[in-house]
Amino acid sequence: MKSMVLYVTCSNEQEARSIGQKLLKERLVACVNILPTIQSLYWWNDDIQEDSETAFFAKTTDKNVDAAITLIKASHSYDCPCIVALPIEKSNPDFLQWIKEQTTKPHDNE
Amino acid sequence: MKSMVLYVTCSNEQEARSIGQKLLKERLVACVNILPTIQSLYWWNDDIQEDSETAFFAKTTDKNVDAAITLIKASHSYDCPCIVALPIEKSNPDFLQWIKEQTTKPHDNE
Amino acid sequence: MKSMVLYVTCSNEQEARSIGQKLLKERLVACVNILPTIQSLYWWNDDIQEDSETAFFAKTTDKNVDAAITLIKASHSYDCPCIVALPIEKSNPDFLQWIKEQTTKPHDNE
Repeated sequence: MKSMVLYVTCSNEQEARSIGQKLLKERLVACVNILPTIQSLYWWNDDIQEDSETAFFAKTTDKNVDAAITLIKASHSYDCPCIVALPIEKSNPDFLQWIKEQTTKPHDNE
Repeated sequence: MKSMVLYVTCSNEQEARSIGQKLLKERLVACVNILPTIQSLYWWNDDIQEDSETAFFAKTTDKNVDAAITLIKASHSYDCPCIVALPIEKSNPDFLQWIKEQTTKPHDNE
Repeated sequence: MKSMVLYVTCSNEQEARSIGQKLLKERLVACVNILPTIQSLYWWNDDIQEDSETAFFAKTTDKNVDAAITLIKASHSYDCPCIVALPIEKSNPDFLQWIKEQTTKPHDNE
């Protein structure tokens, strides 16, 4: 099993918290770290726009990533949100075990 | 095509914004997320120094990374800036497609 | 030699600074970037908890990662801290060289 860090940007802190709670309720991530407000720059029509956003990191395993992306997309106010999974190359083994336990739903062991 | 997240530290928010805008103008990244002020610790001569800095994440593709690094180095106030590219292992396909479109310059299709 | 970004969460900024300084003193990382306060969500008993924490990034090489994890675990107030290493796929060569030099202890060359 491989573990990953999801990096997701949201329109504001309320949206980040709401999506983070949904991911936890479905046991699709082990924990969520919401960063303070960021400033985002991107092209919009023919100009470079700047907007405030809120980003979060969430830790999960490869087997949960697709379902986490699907849930985030369904809950997100953007048509095309930024949801990227970064591979974890090394970690303390007890933390990897904790991620696994936190994202294991009761029926996984039936 | 592989997508990546660049992590870059700058001397302050103004420098981060200026470099971010240059990267966007050259279509070398799809978007830039400027984080609030960070505290950086490092060795300087024989002491551990602490300074305020501003970091940003930018999303791009592997084919733009070298040119993005060259532009950041040329624009940066540091002799040896921190510019690291983290591989994206998974993402929502529409976001990867958006990164690709945003970083495709008109002459790429000629 | 492969370089990596460590992502670590701590109970507060004081703990992040203390652990960051220890990592630098032992030459186990080249630099530390302490982020402003984050909000963390996770399951605790049967509820989703929210707590303030402080996260930091540190840059190092693969040969230092295990010792860095051991030092962080020994210094940390949590039983099971989040310490994850993300691989660096590309960087400016002078920065990779700087990481290597900063994390080379005198006796490595004896």
